[in-house]
Amino acid sequence: MSNDKGYVEPGQDFQRDTNYIEDRITADGSSGWPVEVGRYRLVVARACPWANRATIVRRLLGLEHAFSMGICGPTHDERSWTFDLDPDGRDPVLGHERLQEAFLARDPQYPRGITVPAMVDVPTRAVVTNDFAQMTLDFSTQWTAHHRAGAPELYPEHLRAEMDEVMQRVFTEVNNGVYRCGFAGSQRAYDRAYTRLFTALDWLAERLADRRFLMGDTITEADVRLFTTLARFDAVYHGHFKCNRQKLSEMPVLWAYARDLFQTPGFGDTIDFPQVKRHYYVVHRDVNPTQVVPQGPDTANWLTPHGREELGGSPFGDGTPPGPVADGEEVPAEHGAGGSVSV
Amino acid sequence: MSNDKGYVEPGQDFQRDTNYIEDRITADGSSGWPVEVGRYRLVVARACPWANRATIVRRLLGLEHAFSMGICGPTHDERSWTFDLDPDGRDPVLGHERLQEAFLARDPQYPRGITVPAMVDVPTRAVVTNDFAQMTLDFSTQWTAHHRAGAPELYPEHLRAEMDEVMQRVFTEVNNGVYRCGFAGSQRAYDRAYTRLFTALDWLAERLADRRFLMGDTITEADVRLFTTLARFDAVYHGHFKCNRQKLSEMPVLWAYARDLFQTPGFGDTIDFPQVKRHYYVVHRDVNPTQVVPQGPDTANWLTPHGREELGGSPFGDGTPPGPVADGEEVPAEHGAGGSVSV
Repeated sequence: MSNDKGYVEPGQDFQRDTNYIEDRITADGSSGWPVEVGRYRLVVARACPWANRATIVRRLLGLEHAFSMGICGPTHDERSWTFDLDPDGRDPVLGHERLQEAFLARDPQYPRGITVPAMVDVPTRAVVTNDFAQMTLDFSTQWTAHHRAGAPELYPEHLRAEMDEVMQRVFTEVNNGVYRCGFAGSQRAYDRAYTRLFTALDWLAERLADRRFLMGDTITEADVRLFTTLARFDAVYHGHFKCNRQKLSEMPVLWAYARDLFQTPGFGDTIDFPQVKRHYYVVHRDVNPTQVVPQGPDTANWLTPHGREELGGSPFGDGTPPGPVADGEEVPAEHGAGGSVSV
Repeated sequence: MSNDKGYVEPGQDFQRDTNYIEDRITADGSSGWPVEVGRYRLVVARACPWANRATIVRRLLGLEHAFSMGICGPTHDERSWTFDLDPDGRDPVLGHERLQEAFLARDPQYPRGITVPAMVDVPTRAVVTNDFAQMTLDFSTQWTAHHRAGAPELYPEHLRAEMDEVMQRVFTEVNNGVYRCGFAGSQRAYDRAYTRLFTALDWLAERLADRRFLMGDTITEADVRLFTTLARFDAVYHGHFKCNRQKLSEMPVLWAYARDLFQTPGFGDTIDFPQVKRHYYVVHRDVNPTQVVPQGPDTANWLTPHGREELGGSPFGDGTPPGPVADGEEVPAEHGAGGSVSV
């Protein structure tokens, strides 16, 4: 995702623009965008927590063969995320240099933010949807026919009412809560945001003290959504966004929970710490004018034993973990938790 | 201390201006400024680590009756530290509103930074010296006749050669090293600064692993100088200056050492955490443009058991700890380690 211009509005609370292209890709095609293997391309950035939901869910469900993935670099200018990691700076499938081109292909007057994740229709090279919240649920419910054998049920019908409530609170208080701290335009706005964030983290720690995952014994979409914020907490939010009551690594329950997920195939293997840090510290010039990227913290602690197996549970329910990362989609080893943290 | 204008010089390493008024107050009066009880006033700010040396040494040596102390508020504008904590915003002894007035009384064309700590001649209301490095050594060696009974020897003759070396390395690599990280004008300057800082902290941790204090069994000026940086590490330098390989509280030897000192009379009772945080986060607008002050971290951990007594030693040698803080010089309880951390 991305706000486009300044991030801090002096005197104001941070307000996220939540207007997206809300088209859906559906199994029955009634939306005009039918599920079809090979037709769409998911565009993400490793840095972005909202895009990270999509990379994790795609891995967990084994949808790599159903739609391909393009990866933007960690930084962007006011106009667009760009494909600067690709040879010649162009996405090899779409041919775009800037993700903006896919939005303009959809609407030449496209007035809003150029955000990841985006599902792009390959034939027209135009964005179908950038509605990140619906997107991953549709991976679960609309792409079912193309899930791998052993794929988990990430959005089970019988849990949806409770899940929706939990995910709503995680979204407003945690996923968006860290941004509300970092982009607060006044001390008062920050103080309120800080209290809201840590109140929610305390609630989550209590909820997770005696259950392995947010909805019980098995990983669901709710865990994916919480994980993407926790994975960035010590590397970015603690310092850059002033979410500093403690580090995640100083909150025992949440830290063990986050490592449990990180060490599960499909989670930690999507995290590129140098890109995460580079994104926030370079793009938010009004928070970090020097654009210097910190060298710390050491991320090797993500690989330490977490002890959560003692709570029982079965991460994939009746299913199995996903296999290895697809060729060409690996995070370089030195960018993962065991690697060097320099940028 | 204080740089006056911008703090970050784009593309550059941070360079500290080390030109001070270098007059000395001496026991024999040969400098023109004789030691004389009641004649001078020490001006400090609780926020400033360089001034903090002076407040600690004055406490340890019991010099409160020898010279009084004026306390500037935590923030300052481009021109000067100010007495905004005092009733009517004026220092009650000097009558100044701004510390700058004491520098201009000394030299109407005074061209350099208005810094604390400063020793001011009360009759003329003019600065005698703001040479912070010499100042505390002179408290030890020139004001000896006025030390309290049981005052420690903070700069013992037989240790000076080694102490000077240790203190020099602590100054360039740690005291100033954190600023070199925070005010680095390029990624390259920051990366170098970060490596230097943590190399020095590792050296100190090794040195302190089996000796209670930097010079052995007893507190010296070298400990005072290291302490003032460590006391601000997690509250400010870790986040604001990007000194984030670990928090101090994640470096076992240094953290235990720092708490040992903090819990010793004369050290922790000089630390005002909210003023420390307010100073850095508000004054350095080019590092923190929003001027929002973080609420964290919780500082109650400074009061946890440190276990360093097991190393033996005798913090005050043949002497004794200082008595209670002088009336009117107490840090408000809610600003200390046990207190609320809000500002």
